Amino acid sequence: MDAGVFEHWVKRSLQEVELALEAWVPEAAPAGLGEAMRYAVLGAGKRLRPLLVLAAAEAVGGEREAAMRAACAVELIHAYSLAHDDMPCMDNDVLRRGKPTLHVQYGEAQAMLAGDAMQALAFDVLTPDTGVAPALQARLCRLLARASGYDGMAGGQAIDLASVGKPLGERALRDMHRRKTGVLLQASVLMGAACGDISETAWTSLSDYGAAIGLAFQVVDDILDVTQDSEVLGKTAGKDQDSNKPTYVSVLGLDAARAYALQLRDQAHKALADSGLADTAWLSLLADKVVERDN
Amino acid sequence: MDAGVFEHWVKRSLQEVELALEAWVPEAAPAGLGEAMRYAVLGAGKRLRPLLVLAAAEAVGGEREAAMRAACAVELIHAYSLAHDDMPCMDNDVLRRGKPTLHVQYGEAQAMLAGDAMQALAFDVLTPDTGVAPALQARLCRLLARASGYDGMAGGQAIDLASVGKPLGERALRDMHRRKTGVLLQASVLMGAACGDISETAWTSLSDYGAAIGLAFQVVDDILDVTQDSEVLGKTAGKDQDSNKPTYVSVLGLDAARAYALQLRDQAHKALADSGLADTAWLSLLADKVVERDN
Repeated sequence: MDAGVFEHWVKRSLQEVELALEAWVPEAAPAGLGEAMRYAVLGAGKRLRPLLVLAAAEAVGGEREAAMRAACAVELIHAYSLAHDDMPCMDNDVLRRGKPTLHVQYGEAQAMLAGDAMQALAFDVLTPDTGVAPALQARLCRLLARASGYDGMAGGQAIDLASVGKPLGERALRDMHRRKTGVLLQASVLMGAACGDISETAWTSLSDYGAAIGLAFQVVDDILDVTQDSEVLGKTAGKDQDSNKPTYVSVLGLDAARAYALQLRDQAHKALADSGLADTAWLSLLADKVVERDN
Repeated sequence: MDAGVFEHWVKRSLQEVELALEAWVPEAAPAGLGEAMRYAVLGAGKRLRPLLVLAAAEAVGGEREAAMRAACAVELIHAYSLAHDDMPCMDNDVLRRGKPTLHVQYGEAQAMLAGDAMQALAFDVLTPDTGVAPALQARLCRLLARASGYDGMAGGQAIDLASVGKPLGERALRDMHRRKTGVLLQASVLMGAACGDISETAWTSLSDYGAAIGLAFQVVDDILDVTQDSEVLGKTAGKDQDSNKPTYVSVLGLDAARAYALQLRDQAHKALADSGLADTAWLSLLADKVVERDN
């Protein structure tokens, strides 16, 4: 696979996601809410989750309209979670995606409301009047709701909140991150896969792939938090260390964390090989991207 | 219709909703999140929205399982919105449903997270693996997402936020309340109606009914805010006046506001008569309840 072909696919996909989000996050929403939502979700971010949705959908010959809606829905959930996570009562962060955080820009009340509205919009985007089969709409809503709720992202945040300053073993740390970040990344893959016809074996393999890159993503995040500066990251560097949060680097050490990330990438590749799917090149290269990224 | 029969139906329905919420809002959610969600949603509240869902579902011979899920989902959305609305950055309220507000009890971060998780749980409850037809699941998600997002509840909150201390005419006030409260009450009726077979005429009539009681609810809320004390209301009385928010009482005066509430109740009754549905007694009596309530 020529890396240039992959980069072209990434670029084209990101443009399409951006156009779709532009269309679905309305500027005209009342009393500045539209402006705040657009600030939070447009024009920045790595868009890893939408890329995973689209790559998985392509691997299973999935419907494009459904996949694009799923891609944008999962990004809306991700963007709302960042906006709420940055609030003073949570991480109290001022820099995100290279810009002032949402509450710094628009005030706390509007940031909370925009986050709430983005979560609702995610499910709105998944349930159009026409264009996506109703059964698929329901399945996508189910996958997204479970991944973002108490047993997924929100639950992971609650554990994170309760763990500040407490020693966590690797197992507890892995459980926290699986929920906080991993489950939504995995759901991105599965939402894409749900857009096409897929065997049970392939579904399980893609689920394993999603779990591996979900964990790898967090391990790399923890590595970057100590090895990169804020300018490269687009968010405040070193904040986990400063706030005495347990991380893979603090638990395993930097070298072992790096080795673990590579091991997870290999697991992801193996899961793709086991899937029996012919067209997993994008998913494979996305696994590399997750591990090799520098921000 | 014997009022006792209605009260019996209300009591039985409330018990069933409580049991369903008990089952669907898990105590075991991580790091205290389950406890916080249960505090916010169990054991209190008028449960007007679930009653509207169930009454509308009975009027159209709707499926019970789907209707109960819709009833709980809409109550979860309502409860999350109250929890977020009470936060210091919004209304900064300390009393709700006769208890300390969620953030007073569990802290701001947990209150925000529990609200986020309740919104996700609403869509999770609507999309079970089995027991509700997938097309109905999709339709219920669509109705709920639109009613709670930027064009509904969250949008109304944003207008409310922007309107403090500003003079609003009756028209702008009505638009704010339609979004903030009315659209979700109306959606409760329509989600119940979606659980059965219903003609387009009946759907339009129930939509009109929902719009009328949605507005009546807010007019009565504004009346109670100035005529009742906090103990009866279970929340802080007089706060709209104190915070210089425009209300129906401040715009119309108390007597005209009372007359308007009665007029809206009559509109609701007329819509039911126009629906052609035979079994609208509960919906009719719920319209009375909305207008005659004292808290």
